[in-house]
Amino acid sequence: MLERIESPVDIKDLSHEELEQLCSELREYIVSCCAENPGHIGASLGVVEIAVALHKVFDTPNDKIVWDVGHQAYAHKIITGRREAFKTNRKLGGISGFPKRSESEYDVFGTGHSSTSISAALGLAVGSQMQGSKDHFVAIIGDGSMTGGLAFEGLNNAGSLKTNLLVILNDNQISIDKSIGALHNHLMKVTTSRKYNRIKKTIWDRLGAGKIRTHVQNFLKYIKKGILRNTNASNLFDSLGFRYFGPVDGNDIEQMVDILGRLKEIDGPKLLHVITKKGKGYKPAEDNQTVWHAPGQFDPATGARISGKAGASKFQDVFGHTLLDLAKENEKIIGITPAMATGCSMNIMMAEMPDRVFDVGIAEQHAVTFSAGLAAAGMLPFCNIYSSFAQRAYDNVIHDVALQELKVILCLDRAGIVGEDGPTHHGAFDFSCFRPVPNVMIAAPLNELELRNMMYSATLPEYGTIIIRYPRGTGNGTAWKNEPFERIEPGRGVILQEGKDVALLSVGAIGYNGSLAVKKAQERGISVFHCDMRFLKPIDENLLEKVCSKVGRIVTLEDGALIGGLYSAVSEYVASRQLSCKVTGLGMPDRFVGQGTPEQLHKECGYDVDGILKALINV
Amino acid sequence: MLERIESPVDIKDLSHEELEQLCSELREYIVSCCAENPGHIGASLGVVEIAVALHKVFDTPNDKIVWDVGHQAYAHKIITGRREAFKTNRKLGGISGFPKRSESEYDVFGTGHSSTSISAALGLAVGSQMQGSKDHFVAIIGDGSMTGGLAFEGLNNAGSLKTNLLVILNDNQISIDKSIGALHNHLMKVTTSRKYNRIKKTIWDRLGAGKIRTHVQNFLKYIKKGILRNTNASNLFDSLGFRYFGPVDGNDIEQMVDILGRLKEIDGPKLLHVITKKGKGYKPAEDNQTVWHAPGQFDPATGARISGKAGASKFQDVFGHTLLDLAKENEKIIGITPAMATGCSMNIMMAEMPDRVFDVGIAEQHAVTFSAGLAAAGMLPFCNIYSSFAQRAYDNVIHDVALQELKVILCLDRAGIVGEDGPTHHGAFDFSCFRPVPNVMIAAPLNELELRNMMYSATLPEYGTIIIRYPRGTGNGTAWKNEPFERIEPGRGVILQEGKDVALLSVGAIGYNGSLAVKKAQERGISVFHCDMRFLKPIDENLLEKVCSKVGRIVTLEDGALIGGLYSAVSEYVASRQLSCKVTGLGMPDRFVGQGTPEQLHKECGYDVDGILKALINV
Repeated sequence: MLERIESPVDIKDLSHEELEQLCSELREYIVSCCAENPGHIGASLGVVEIAVALHKVFDTPNDKIVWDVGHQAYAHKIITGRREAFKTNRKLGGISGFPKRSESEYDVFGTGHSSTSISAALGLAVGSQMQGSKDHFVAIIGDGSMTGGLAFEGLNNAGSLKTNLLVILNDNQISIDKSIGALHNHLMKVTTSRKYNRIKKTIWDRLGAGKIRTHVQNFLKYIKKGILRNTNASNLFDSLGFRYFGPVDGNDIEQMVDILGRLKEIDGPKLLHVITKKGKGYKPAEDNQTVWHAPGQFDPATGARISGKAGASKFQDVFGHTLLDLAKENEKIIGITPAMATGCSMNIMMAEMPDRVFDVGIAEQHAVTFSAGLAAAGMLPFCNIYSSFAQRAYDNVIHDVALQELKVILCLDRAGIVGEDGPTHHGAFDFSCFRPVPNVMIAAPLNELELRNMMYSATLPEYGTIIIRYPRGTGNGTAWKNEPFERIEPGRGVILQEGKDVALLSVGAIGYNGSLAVKKAQERGISVFHCDMRFLKPIDENLLEKVCSKVGRIVTLEDGALIGGLYSAVSEYVASRQLSCKVTGLGMPDRFVGQGTPEQLHKECGYDVDGILKALINV
Repeated sequence: MLERIESPVDIKDLSHEELEQLCSELREYIVSCCAENPGHIGASLGVVEIAVALHKVFDTPNDKIVWDVGHQAYAHKIITGRREAFKTNRKLGGISGFPKRSESEYDVFGTGHSSTSISAALGLAVGSQMQGSKDHFVAIIGDGSMTGGLAFEGLNNAGSLKTNLLVILNDNQISIDKSIGALHNHLMKVTTSRKYNRIKKTIWDRLGAGKIRTHVQNFLKYIKKGILRNTNASNLFDSLGFRYFGPVDGNDIEQMVDILGRLKEIDGPKLLHVITKKGKGYKPAEDNQTVWHAPGQFDPATGARISGKAGASKFQDVFGHTLLDLAKENEKIIGITPAMATGCSMNIMMAEMPDRVFDVGIAEQHAVTFSAGLAAAGMLPFCNIYSSFAQRAYDNVIHDVALQELKVILCLDRAGIVGEDGPTHHGAFDFSCFRPVPNVMIAAPLNELELRNMMYSATLPEYGTIIIRYPRGTGNGTAWKNEPFERIEPGRGVILQEGKDVALLSVGAIGYNGSLAVKKAQERGISVFHCDMRFLKPIDENLLEKVCSKVGRIVTLEDGALIGGLYSAVSEYVASRQLSCKVTGLGMPDRFVGQGTPEQLHKECGYDVDGILKALINV
């Protein structure tokens, strides 16, 4: 069946049985592709029926579908002309793991970060309707993404306009970790209510789903009678000006096609609450939804995950274990994560000290301001956010933390190039956007042990507000576990090696690439003065002075946007003193960096080992 | 009465009549102080009773009160030991117009931007309760601020914890302009319902407010019976795990004291919905709430506003009229404002073209992503946000606009030093945080006409995504109104004057200060090469080349953080080419700049005319 689907046109005339068959084949295809070429399998398996039903019922790409976050859009991609291309999913030069405007006319709005879909779809709808279009607009958003403040802002605006907009709330009760928060509790209450189960088991089985083709008016009558409408759930969304429908079983293709067809005829802002199962149809993924959010390679037959090369620890493990070690010694320490407990390894502390870790849901702004409140109450919050998601909390860091000089230890995970998730997820801007913020130190550890010691040092009284940023993935293998804590001198870099021809000033774990390049340069007779700056801010001016007195060429190296980071800081130092020193910057260029393995992308950006070597030689 | 209030202790034993008297005197005092020394009078007049009741009922500063936004906290400040100091409100060296931790132990969390109070109060509450405290925690948030996504994130988290937290929703149905959005519609429905009016007129008059001192249990019984509880309103907040109470009349001191005393005894997260009147008790302020949000100086007896020196136009007027002029010629143009229609003068277009301007409420993130959606639908959105509030939309600019190369024209008002509103409101970081973002041009007009022509040029096809930032207040008097539009060459600066001793590279309206300094330098025999860079990005490298070939000293001048802006861009240029050129930066230093007149603060930061002159001479 799947072989015959080149575009949504090919599914328009399929029978329910054929649609079921298609969904089943889509699942198999997603599983087999992702087994070899890893991706976000769990979320995508959960929404296969939604994707198929949407493209059957709506006239895409004229009708517009916006997938929130977007890593669940695999079925959407496969049935919109990208079946073969899907084998290149997330690879260098391949299709994106997220909807991408430049990739397909069916991807009407690019996503990656959560909670944008309602705002974007509303903008699309308002703009189109102002031009006389009668197209339909649909945003599909998970219950996890719905906790992001942006989603609420979108609902609040949409609910007061008359615009035709359908929001599908895809309630799978899980983000990556279990969903939390009051909204989740509320939705849980709705879906476990007797009423919902009555709707699900009785009404739909007997009446629904195409067997009796009741007219839209008839459908509305049912809704009016409260039969297809859960009063508890309708409260929240009705309050915000949406007509609420549901909950319904989002993994029932027959029902989805039926209800979407009916909703298409109803004007104004509407919300359809569907229940789906993350990992649906593939048992290992259903059984452990957190792991199977993005499991890496696996054997599709057994579900056995194929682990990568063992060896060096992940920075995430270092963070997680060190946090627990510190928390055991200091009862003021609190962990805060916006829905990334497993991803950042805060689940390690959570398991032992559940009362001292707060998963606040997908809510980066709140995570930071809540941390500021905790700090104002005398606690010592470690707030961990992925670097690119911390862009959401920029104002909170400035306004609630830095301005008030509150001691929040902000750990930015996934800083620098992250790899296959691509441009939406690279942590490119943290150095640049936080460097101008007063009262904030910014540090980036060279290796596992430095991360551990920075986290420890940050708890000392001489340290104030600090940002510690480190990359996704493994370090260089430096021993760290159970190492005794060692204080790091604030604002002081270290000389890794003295030299006289050229200096390499690196900050962060990318300095390891630097060390390898320095060795190679050495072999070619070039003597390199290599410093691990450790701190972007305050920058170690004594060290810069020393370096500038010894060499006339400096190469800066950072895994982040060149503009505004270490390159700028060193340039400012040199230019303000009229030093006769040439500064060359290695880092992310002034364009959005694509997807690929980190190694591929470092190379592309010119700061793989060879790129660094070239800069050391050629400057 | 007011003369006797040195701290909240002094109001503990006041009778209801005395409290009423106190409220009345507080109003008079606020009006008379603000008549001479301008401030946010409207909001503060509205919450006098809430402030007095809170300090009477709660044991402040042990019990903690967080005022959202905080410009309404004047009564709070006056009765917490700052009666005399209030005469210095918002002045250089005086007390802040917002709560400020360093100013008073009663200001438990600093505010300024909206929607932070629930997150902050929750953090304070959780942190304190973990340390065994039994203190009470209250957040007071307006219905306008409640539309900000951060407030929702806070509610969602708080509603799922058992923490004792009282949120007072201060519903005055206005932000600065009229409140809008679905939440507002919902609250309106509640407060205009017969039920609310029955509660207000009958129940409270007969039973309430200290006449019959019903026990808390009794009170709860009323609530249970639904008498003190509006079912419509309870839906929304109950869904989020809060016990909802209200709505009640927040300008009735007797009732406020009574109900707060009762709520104090109820555990868990609760929300009290109070109705107040912005400007309450001062007729001119009640009659025109938007103007009297912050009216400037006025005659307290008549309410006649004392207008400042006439003359040069405000940049805001230029923006507003130019937008309308452009919109008349181009039907794709749409205006988007997050609740600042009057402040940014988008109300001018709104009045003529109500269907083409969207006030989306206090929701900066949504404003930008909604604009991105509009752009994706082929419209041409002008989204206007105050620079410091745009920090909220940082991720949206990166992820939804720049990455997708959508043509949104983002106008950042209040960029640079804003004056009396102080550190929370200075537009310090826009240059620095947006410069590293690919695909975005950043421009800053020198004067009124340049703003007009930049707005026009931005609509031309050769321009993509652009940020145009300009300051609060008047320009230098350049004629602009009805001037024919003139295209500005993208990325090209202009030479204002050639010279040979030193170069002044300025960007933005602060360049006018620069021109005055250049004249003075000239008088002292110093020949200055002065350029208006116009664009921070792309920076005009041809111009830089020319400058560097002529002079050995460059002074950069920008009204924004030195780190990361023009100073950095020029330093990068110089250092990467090993030019023998000394670069000195003038701009906001690496500390939070306080409050005062813009002139005072420019001087303090070293870029008033004399400061610039000094730099030109001394470098």
